[in-house]
Amino acid sequence: MNREEAVTRAQELVARMSVEEKISQLRYNAPAIDRLGIPAYNWWNEALHGVARAGQATSFPQAIGIAATFDRELVRDIAETIAEEGRAKYNAYSEYGDRDIYKGLTFWSPNINIFRDPRWGRGQETYGEDPYLSGALGCEFVRGLQGDGEYMKAAACAKHFAVHSGPEAVRHSFDAKASKKDMAETYLAAFEMLVKDADVEAVMGAYNRVNGEPACGSPALMSILRGKWGFKGHFVSDCWAIRDFHEHHHVTETAEESAALAMNTGCDLNCGDTFLHLLDAYRAGMIKEERLTEACVRLFTTRFLLGLFDETEYDGIPYSVVESPEHLALSEKCARESMVLLKNNGLLPLDRKKIRTIGVIGPNANSRAALVGNYHGTATEYITPLDGIISFLRDEPVRVLYSEGCDIMDDRIEKLAFENDRLAEARIVADESDAVILVVGLNETLEGEEGDTGNSYASGDKADLLLPPPQRGLMRELAAAGKPVVLCLIAGSAIDLSFAEENFDAVIGMWYPGARGGKALAELLFGDYSPSGKLDVTFYRNDSALPDFEDYSMDGRTYRYLRGEPLYPFGYGLTYGDVEVTGAKLSEDGSAVEAEWRENGKAPTEDVIEVYVRAEDSPFATPNPRLCGFARVKAGKGAGGSARIPLDPAAFTVVNDDGERVSGGSRYTLYVGTSQPDERSFRLTGRRPFEFEITR
Amino acid sequence: MNREEAVTRAQELVARMSVEEKISQLRYNAPAIDRLGIPAYNWWNEALHGVARAGQATSFPQAIGIAATFDRELVRDIAETIAEEGRAKYNAYSEYGDRDIYKGLTFWSPNINIFRDPRWGRGQETYGEDPYLSGALGCEFVRGLQGDGEYMKAAACAKHFAVHSGPEAVRHSFDAKASKKDMAETYLAAFEMLVKDADVEAVMGAYNRVNGEPACGSPALMSILRGKWGFKGHFVSDCWAIRDFHEHHHVTETAEESAALAMNTGCDLNCGDTFLHLLDAYRAGMIKEERLTEACVRLFTTRFLLGLFDETEYDGIPYSVVESPEHLALSEKCARESMVLLKNNGLLPLDRKKIRTIGVIGPNANSRAALVGNYHGTATEYITPLDGIISFLRDEPVRVLYSEGCDIMDDRIEKLAFENDRLAEARIVADESDAVILVVGLNETLEGEEGDTGNSYASGDKADLLLPPPQRGLMRELAAAGKPVVLCLIAGSAIDLSFAEENFDAVIGMWYPGARGGKALAELLFGDYSPSGKLDVTFYRNDSALPDFEDYSMDGRTYRYLRGEPLYPFGYGLTYGDVEVTGAKLSEDGSAVEAEWRENGKAPTEDVIEVYVRAEDSPFATPNPRLCGFARVKAGKGAGGSARIPLDPAAFTVVNDDGERVSGGSRYTLYVGTSQPDERSFRLTGRRPFEFEITR
Repeated sequence: MNREEAVTRAQELVARMSVEEKISQLRYNAPAIDRLGIPAYNWWNEALHGVARAGQATSFPQAIGIAATFDRELVRDIAETIAEEGRAKYNAYSEYGDRDIYKGLTFWSPNINIFRDPRWGRGQETYGEDPYLSGALGCEFVRGLQGDGEYMKAAACAKHFAVHSGPEAVRHSFDAKASKKDMAETYLAAFEMLVKDADVEAVMGAYNRVNGEPACGSPALMSILRGKWGFKGHFVSDCWAIRDFHEHHHVTETAEESAALAMNTGCDLNCGDTFLHLLDAYRAGMIKEERLTEACVRLFTTRFLLGLFDETEYDGIPYSVVESPEHLALSEKCARESMVLLKNNGLLPLDRKKIRTIGVIGPNANSRAALVGNYHGTATEYITPLDGIISFLRDEPVRVLYSEGCDIMDDRIEKLAFENDRLAEARIVADESDAVILVVGLNETLEGEEGDTGNSYASGDKADLLLPPPQRGLMRELAAAGKPVVLCLIAGSAIDLSFAEENFDAVIGMWYPGARGGKALAELLFGDYSPSGKLDVTFYRNDSALPDFEDYSMDGRTYRYLRGEPLYPFGYGLTYGDVEVTGAKLSEDGSAVEAEWRENGKAPTEDVIEVYVRAEDSPFATPNPRLCGFARVKAGKGAGGSARIPLDPAAFTVVNDDGERVSGGSRYTLYVGTSQPDERSFRLTGRRPFEFEITR
Repeated sequence: MNREEAVTRAQELVARMSVEEKISQLRYNAPAIDRLGIPAYNWWNEALHGVARAGQATSFPQAIGIAATFDRELVRDIAETIAEEGRAKYNAYSEYGDRDIYKGLTFWSPNINIFRDPRWGRGQETYGEDPYLSGALGCEFVRGLQGDGEYMKAAACAKHFAVHSGPEAVRHSFDAKASKKDMAETYLAAFEMLVKDADVEAVMGAYNRVNGEPACGSPALMSILRGKWGFKGHFVSDCWAIRDFHEHHHVTETAEESAALAMNTGCDLNCGDTFLHLLDAYRAGMIKEERLTEACVRLFTTRFLLGLFDETEYDGIPYSVVESPEHLALSEKCARESMVLLKNNGLLPLDRKKIRTIGVIGPNANSRAALVGNYHGTATEYITPLDGIISFLRDEPVRVLYSEGCDIMDDRIEKLAFENDRLAEARIVADESDAVILVVGLNETLEGEEGDTGNSYASGDKADLLLPPPQRGLMRELAAAGKPVVLCLIAGSAIDLSFAEENFDAVIGMWYPGARGGKALAELLFGDYSPSGKLDVTFYRNDSALPDFEDYSMDGRTYRYLRGEPLYPFGYGLTYGDVEVTGAKLSEDGSAVEAEWRENGKAPTEDVIEVYVRAEDSPFATPNPRLCGFARVKAGKGAGGSARIPLDPAAFTVVNDDGERVSGGSRYTLYVGTSQPDERSFRLTGRRPFEFEITR
């Protein structure tokens, strides 16, 4: 069904509704209208990395890990899988009469906010700090979720529009101030791609204000979205964000005024309950019925596009696809591609024949909670790092010793014990072991979301980039033990890993790797495959050089604007192989880079070839070269090949101070390699990208 | 080192102490006395089912499950294993200088209180409701823990002395009133066995008063313990129980008076801090130094017996014994023997060749917390029922579907959802499946201990015998699905399983089966072995016929005094085989029953042959026959054998109303079979025990 047809049917249906009925349909938990044959529908569903909060579903790595794969096809496959499981669950739940929250087909995913500041607790939900990566992968996610069938398979939602990245604690009252250049270049760029290139069906407004206007009632933002970009889908408020207008932002006085402001600005659907006041606002003359009709038509257009009133090609998708072996394998593939090898002095891959006892230590080593991050479904099988290592070594004559080492946050495990009551055990295990796998990090109780609405775990941002104190003590203790140590970080954000870099033999960033992530880790450790994930955020040395958390200027933030050296740069990640780009040129039509590469005889591996661009003559170029293309390659040991790497169509543009995208001039340098062209990446990898200049 | 030698060395050491130093050693966290070369020692350690709260340790089924094996040798093996791991951990921790709580060699286990009322949250810690079973297995536990080496391997502690079995909520102020007959026959019997037959090194007093006297300061109880039974070890208070004297029991006015009362009555060691007031009490003339010396000598006697000041044969026990493959195998063996098959209409064992899809449903199906009960250590590998089933079927063409079904207690999983938000999923899974494994029950947050001291989880008793409401709703839903259902209960106590008995094909009582319990369950379900556990508590039909929880009269309680029929009787448990006792007689010396048995061609199995006795002529006989012997047998399919079943030396005695154990007269009936001789057992099993009369 095309949009035109859906709109027509929506218009016909809405025309039969009273104004009260129309208004009733503008809330996330829309009631049935029996006389019109309209069933109840709950718009609220979540699927950042698998169908969330509705029971069983394939659990993929958290979004920040998905993006670290730099793998367009994979992201699309994942989203297709989510849509397939979402449909299967929708079919089954509907048959059972269960039309509750989290059981519909409108997923409020992806989150394509820019992970501007590493302290943001919800940065884990995003595709990292780069607008092009976020937009490119976000488009794939939308395409995968929405499908290309007769009907839309599931509706995606680009959130949170816009300029939204913490602090969580003040999100309901905060005014994010962003320059026109930062808006266009950074904060809105991915949204523009999802609207214009991927036809995302919905956009969700943010909690905060943007340059003075609440994001869910911002004429400025709406004119960009609908006016400039031609967005045709529906706009939904973040949950209880419209209530914030009068309660926290104080841009209105009453709930009626807030409802009217949101509605009149173009917000069609309310997650929350402020639209309960729409009828009063309408009766008070604050809203025209035409606008209510328009909103209602948009919402029913989505419902018709999804085929919710028809038989569709998806009705036969059986429940058994949920967590099917193929889907679980895809989750494992994503976990494998997402893990980032940050340091390796040669210890990895471990030689299982030389290890008799392996110590697995740390508060995240056997934590199921740490596997999944936030907004997660329920997995049938959880494989923690410890589980994965035990399983991997089941038939080997290797003893696995374990110690929790410390609580993830508290200073002791047992209430009546002294501080650090597992530190001795951790040291004993290390002393008994030939090698130590130390698994530290966070979980959704420590980094997450201001806890007043959908996320039942009260949590928030990080105060700084350090691991909690007991984990730092544990790292110090194990450094003192003098054994070979692999530090594995499970977290959804950049952490200050300076101590680990200095003291341990190998460092792995695992993100939140999904329910089966421990299996992928074990296989990585013992060399069943070569790691190939790349950082989608900068790992700073510490937070001392970071701007204030509330400062939304991009100056000094993320790899494009960074001054000084990070600990681990954006785009960085080692492999067990050594893929070198030996040559590259722009394709004849200018839409891609054609690269030649070889693997220098170390080990077969996948790797990501990244293309960065610097506009040499423009005063508006970002301070550092920016990502404009990427592609995964698969390299046999000692083999080579060529790759066509599609380029950002905006690769040769810049954004001026008025927020206009203009030509970047005639001279550009392109860098093509397996990392950024910065000095730190060079020192970490020993290789510089292939570099060439073009003129246009 | 024998006790005499230890006493001498203790006397010599204590003689060198000032009164202040002596007093300092009478608290659980005894400080070092450097001038005498005495290191700090924390007396508090726990090991009901594995070394607890000190990190890694082999996790055995909770005590209530251990006892359901009715397996003396196994209990001894388990306790030996605990002592081995305790020594290994003590060696390693001491070397590291860690002498904190839970890291010493004085284990406050076993708990041999009689599980008098099924609502008691700590009943899970006990060996059930029968004094003989509790005493016999308790003795094995003590022997295993203390060992028979040159030095005592670890010190056991019989707790809580006495008449202690809830309610938890009032334990600090409650006065348990028990008749002389109930005291001797029920509440003290197991303690007497542990003191007289197994030389238990320590006894812990209870929180409550007993017939008006606080148990940790009761002349009546102490005169029995030290006077009548000749107890030579040390007496320790329950934690902060002495504070209860003045704060809750109001038998004293001040902390000094409480300390003096406990000390003067014979309590040697204070878990808590009231003995901080001992010095004031001593200076006020309330305590004689001789008594302080005596207490201190008793405590140092234990420390010398343990070899804490010597080199011992245990010093070389390496850390690697902790969770060794042999120890883990023993835990699995215990889990296998502990599971009780309560109903089987023929569905079990499942035929894996006939099942294409199996549904695993319920809040305990994938809960690690439910595996371990309270007072647990940390396992390196947890195998939930779901994990176990998945692993078991890994190479079979069988699909495993899972649904949590409901929260273990709350009415919904997702905060914003309607009630019962996983019920549809559970039904969908059932409808998709050829058979359903439904795993319900409790965990230590729902049944446990009044939460003010050592157990950091605030919890308590059960209000009734029903599962929490959402689980009842889940059972109803699955009964309506009409699929074959195996109901698996994970709980540490009797639950009203009437609905399951009526509606499901099979019912299994798993207790808290230990960290690897899910493996044992899967093997049972698919017939890798035959279940053979027996109920060590009565499963009542409901709580309507139960006396008041605070009523400590045994009248109407437990199988010996029960009127009416239970749902599942004490001693009951099916197997996949059919062991029949075909003949039995008293051995010539009267110390055992010699039984002939055969397996009637159904399946190889282990089983428990139980002996019950009724004194036919005594007015003091318990209303129903009581257990006086038990032995495990191992039966090949269709094979048979003979067994010598040792008898309780008190089998032919009764306890009169003055609490004196006297002859039960000349005529006795003995019942020898795989269950009690009651009508309900007969109807459930289809077999009556072999019965014969003797005269003496």
